[in-house]
Amino acid sequence: MSSHLSRREFLSAAGAAACALGVNAQTQEAPSGAAKGVLDLTHSPYAVMRSVPVSAVRLTEGFWARRTNVNRDSAVPFTYQQMVDHGRFDNFVRWDGARQALRAGFHTDHPSGLRAGGDSETYKWIEAACFTLDSAPDAELEHNLKQVVRDVIGTQEPSGYLNTYFVEGRAAERMLPATQISGHEVYNLGHLIQAAVAYQRTTGDRSLLDASVRYADDFLLPRFGPETGKQPAIAGHPEAEMAFVELYRATGDKRHLAFARYLLEGDPRFALRRDQYVALFCGSPFTNRTRLEGHAVRCTYACCGAADYYLESGDPAYRKTSEALWQDLVNHKMYITGGIGARHEGEAFGDPYELPNLRAYSESCGAIGNFMWNWRLLCGTGEARFADVMERALYNGINSGTSIDGKLYNYCNPLALEGASDRVRKPWYSTNCCPPNLDRTFASIPGYLYSTSKDGIYVHFYEDSDLDWQLENGAVLKIAQRTNYPWSGDVEMNISPAQAAEFTVYLRVPAWSRNTSVQVNRNPVDAPAGTYVPIRRRWTGRDRITLRFDMSPRLTVANSRAESDFRKVAVERGPLVYCMEQTDQPEAAPLEGYSLALRDNAAKEFQTVSDAQTLGGITAIHAPGFHTAAQSGATQPLYQPLALAERKAVTLKFIPYYAFANRGNWSMQVWVPYSRV
Amino acid sequence: MSSHLSRREFLSAAGAAACALGVNAQTQEAPSGAAKGVLDLTHSPYAVMRSVPVSAVRLTEGFWARRTNVNRDSAVPFTYQQMVDHGRFDNFVRWDGARQALRAGFHTDHPSGLRAGGDSETYKWIEAACFTLDSAPDAELEHNLKQVVRDVIGTQEPSGYLNTYFVEGRAAERMLPATQISGHEVYNLGHLIQAAVAYQRTTGDRSLLDASVRYADDFLLPRFGPETGKQPAIAGHPEAEMAFVELYRATGDKRHLAFARYLLEGDPRFALRRDQYVALFCGSPFTNRTRLEGHAVRCTYACCGAADYYLESGDPAYRKTSEALWQDLVNHKMYITGGIGARHEGEAFGDPYELPNLRAYSESCGAIGNFMWNWRLLCGTGEARFADVMERALYNGINSGTSIDGKLYNYCNPLALEGASDRVRKPWYSTNCCPPNLDRTFASIPGYLYSTSKDGIYVHFYEDSDLDWQLENGAVLKIAQRTNYPWSGDVEMNISPAQAAEFTVYLRVPAWSRNTSVQVNRNPVDAPAGTYVPIRRRWTGRDRITLRFDMSPRLTVANSRAESDFRKVAVERGPLVYCMEQTDQPEAAPLEGYSLALRDNAAKEFQTVSDAQTLGGITAIHAPGFHTAAQSGATQPLYQPLALAERKAVTLKFIPYYAFANRGNWSMQVWVPYSRV
Repeated sequence: MSSHLSRREFLSAAGAAACALGVNAQTQEAPSGAAKGVLDLTHSPYAVMRSVPVSAVRLTEGFWARRTNVNRDSAVPFTYQQMVDHGRFDNFVRWDGARQALRAGFHTDHPSGLRAGGDSETYKWIEAACFTLDSAPDAELEHNLKQVVRDVIGTQEPSGYLNTYFVEGRAAERMLPATQISGHEVYNLGHLIQAAVAYQRTTGDRSLLDASVRYADDFLLPRFGPETGKQPAIAGHPEAEMAFVELYRATGDKRHLAFARYLLEGDPRFALRRDQYVALFCGSPFTNRTRLEGHAVRCTYACCGAADYYLESGDPAYRKTSEALWQDLVNHKMYITGGIGARHEGEAFGDPYELPNLRAYSESCGAIGNFMWNWRLLCGTGEARFADVMERALYNGINSGTSIDGKLYNYCNPLALEGASDRVRKPWYSTNCCPPNLDRTFASIPGYLYSTSKDGIYVHFYEDSDLDWQLENGAVLKIAQRTNYPWSGDVEMNISPAQAAEFTVYLRVPAWSRNTSVQVNRNPVDAPAGTYVPIRRRWTGRDRITLRFDMSPRLTVANSRAESDFRKVAVERGPLVYCMEQTDQPEAAPLEGYSLALRDNAAKEFQTVSDAQTLGGITAIHAPGFHTAAQSGATQPLYQPLALAERKAVTLKFIPYYAFANRGNWSMQVWVPYSRV
Repeated sequence: MSSHLSRREFLSAAGAAACALGVNAQTQEAPSGAAKGVLDLTHSPYAVMRSVPVSAVRLTEGFWARRTNVNRDSAVPFTYQQMVDHGRFDNFVRWDGARQALRAGFHTDHPSGLRAGGDSETYKWIEAACFTLDSAPDAELEHNLKQVVRDVIGTQEPSGYLNTYFVEGRAAERMLPATQISGHEVYNLGHLIQAAVAYQRTTGDRSLLDASVRYADDFLLPRFGPETGKQPAIAGHPEAEMAFVELYRATGDKRHLAFARYLLEGDPRFALRRDQYVALFCGSPFTNRTRLEGHAVRCTYACCGAADYYLESGDPAYRKTSEALWQDLVNHKMYITGGIGARHEGEAFGDPYELPNLRAYSESCGAIGNFMWNWRLLCGTGEARFADVMERALYNGINSGTSIDGKLYNYCNPLALEGASDRVRKPWYSTNCCPPNLDRTFASIPGYLYSTSKDGIYVHFYEDSDLDWQLENGAVLKIAQRTNYPWSGDVEMNISPAQAAEFTVYLRVPAWSRNTSVQVNRNPVDAPAGTYVPIRRRWTGRDRITLRFDMSPRLTVANSRAESDFRKVAVERGPLVYCMEQTDQPEAAPLEGYSLALRDNAAKEFQTVSDAQTLGGITAIHAPGFHTAAQSGATQPLYQPLALAERKAVTLKFIPYYAFANRGNWSMQVWVPYSRV
């Protein structure tokens, strides 16, 4: 694509190409406002901003362009092949929904990979494929996508029911109370709805959306709900809450919004035990919750649904509860990487300050849940604190989830590692929720850089990219960002409305940037950290914003109650959390023996070293430190006499956390002890 | 009591006095061997040692004498009064077992304190009273004890059933599967049996033992068990396993031993979920267990039962499993205090190395379970490593459980504290398991100092005391220990057999004593740490053993995987773990700001300071350290920039851990960071 072809022109051409393949590119519906972002907040009364379509932002040469290119070229096709190999797609082929019988060639044994929650993995892959196609056409991907969608639709039964697991002998278990609690039926439906919405937005093809509406309207809603004569429903694994809100946004059918609220309220007829509604984070009123607890993914997905419900309803109880839970997140329960879920047992949140590093669960889906939740809170408030959490999660706890080459995934993202882990850097997991979740998240990144508002446009994240979109009044606007962010803190933005107009550009200044320079046409603007700086002026089309964020390495400490981090520091730079990997250190020795040598609070002696050859291109950090001979935990007794060894001055090397475990099973740590010198 | 009156003579006189009160003091049965210790291992084929009765050891002027005096004078009567005030004893008065109806004066409302597991608290108090009376007569205590026992017996129904909770409307729930799992019925029976055995041994009165046998033989065994036609049983909360083994020791009825084994094996008809049999630590075969998990008290009580079963059966699978679980204990899951159970949630063991300090659960009953388990392992092996764990638990994690004045109890024994806790130093807990458990444990301490073996006598613990007992061949033996242990490491022992004889005295050398001097009549004996030193000779009655343990303060580190303790040290001296309390420190500042200043691995610059006025008399430790202004965790954000403040040389003061929180709600920590100087 030539650089003088506008994004709109390109997309229009791409749309025409897509049409030839039977795909109705959504941008053809623009500029009517019908083109939707990841969320369609066009008519959400309590949203202060609207999403920008993935298709409206082109990532050019930067950090996320590299990641999304790998995602498109490697991860999404790789996940597709893994799903083929593990029978996930075949699950949809084997069941003839119309006949309610196995298709020829399938016997009654379970094919490889038939699992209660497995359908959701296919649905997340559909979303990944759609967001990928939003950015650029890809005939093979589109072909595969359409085949998968056809197979999914072919699984739907005349009743509307659509699930590959609760068929044949297990059909009798459908939607029984126990099945709803643990069988992921409603969860699968939620992901089906999200996939269907994305598919319709990307292709214009309503077939999958119609199928999900049939499932909801013909099967689910007539049988389940709070009304007399209906059976009780429960999310089991929250997800359908946000899906039903998004379905409402797509259909306008208030029953869909009401069902989301019903799931969030919990049907008292389930009479769950406390340990159940804590672990499941559903089945008791969301607005009675006072803390993040239980299964971290369930919990944050429920929070997403609650935030989505607030965006439509404005119900203050949901906002109040969300705020309380968010405070619990950032004050007690979030890893510095944006990861969540301290405990392997129950994949659960721990107690306040229970943030172990080696034993961190920090599931990739949890960081994604955190990201999605904060996106919804941001859309409802315009407060930069939510974008700060999103950035932290995206660059670190999510970005670590996929390997640099896009073919190995993390289920867990611990903050310290001792050699290999069975939940780090694997091509496949028997519960394969994380890989397609990562794929769809990376594919959707262009949709998170900007939002529009009544009075202008929000710039949430900085990335070398071109926006070609419109303000909410329909005025066409292009913004070109030129930056090597996050390696550099310098960003240039050309604000180019088609017609000169007055509007506000909200520039996010990350909370971590202690000294920020913002200039508009070389005129400085006050830019407090942790805010959106509103720049309201008449933009003529020749205006340039120049930003310089403070990229000096930072030394961060945790609350002393976070015992795993006590008297340690984390090294951060820009939005990136750094870590030490054993392979980079001067002594071939366990990491337990290293400490930073700190002269004062600043990291003045730290050196940033740009290295284009390592780990896909990074800026490493070199810092003065000490090495003391230390035994690895694996060989030590639980308690033993202190043995202070001589310490030696060394240079410690740090890489971005997201890149850990890409060069083999090296020990790794984010939090590093320090000595004063 | 005059010092020239022998213990035996005194007890004989006391027994006569007791007889006047209707108590048949057990020492009257001596020297036939019928006098029993806490466990009766007289006929246990796989025990390598036999217990010595509580009554055979008089604690004189030392550490445990002070504790047991407080226990007798304050704690046991105080717990009695608390149980009266909270209706625990009334629970037995209200139900007329013979008529199976409420007695006059009680209505059907729940009286204060009626709880499913509440009966066990009364039974533990009965044991505490019995062990206390073993040491010395006490007319008021005996009166109260006999009244309580009468009331318990009066609650028994004609069927043999005896429980205060599952009566009236709840009678229909008796021994239902769900009730067995969570209703503590079999658990209560276990404690009833232990109380009954203790009562019979102390008083000679079989009435309570007969009642417990009726419950077992008339009600339980005919209805529940593995045999066809019987219903399945489960411990729910393990405890009855060890109780039924002890009942077998008292009755010789092999059905009682078989029922213990049946509970340990788990009845497959219960078909528990994995999360259930993990949490409950019963309901699946004990010999399939590979790690300590689930509820820590349940787990160690089950381990006690398994060890007891091994002592009778010699079943190698039980020994092998016990060894594997013990290795898991000492290598992964035991606090340095001997406390166990890392997690508040489920009162459960954590993962390996999950040993948080502030959030430590470390229930008093868990440390007691650990102590009782290791006692049984010691009795089956004679290996000093088990006594090391017992000593660690007794002096620290158990001893911390009761306040110095005997009226405040810890449910939890965390290794760091920030101000008040609702589970530390309270007179009463709604689940009041810990206070009477601590009372009975302290009262029984004299019974743990010695054991006899075929070839002589074991000295497990050092304490100013007089033994007046006999070898297994019936030869009378007195041992006088004179020591200020654990404040001093010097012990003098006069070994005085009634007749000169050859036998072995096994002297335990604690693993922590790196340099130990043992002399027999001034002749040095090799004394390796962590062993029983066997001294076989002809003892004439004029022999003196002199021991000197290494009481220099020790600096202990934890495995680096124990993240809460990383780069910290614990200060220990002798069997005592020390801690810092904020009130003792030079700056009125949060403990987070202190660190030890260490010149090398030794604590040579540490000073021991004897202080008879503080905390009932302690030896404190003063150590060089630093203070840096630090914020308390309560006021910090989760993450913030490092702020290194100037440090100031100060003297840090340490007190024994067991004495924490006896002077108000001060912050406390066991593990202290250190700086090299």
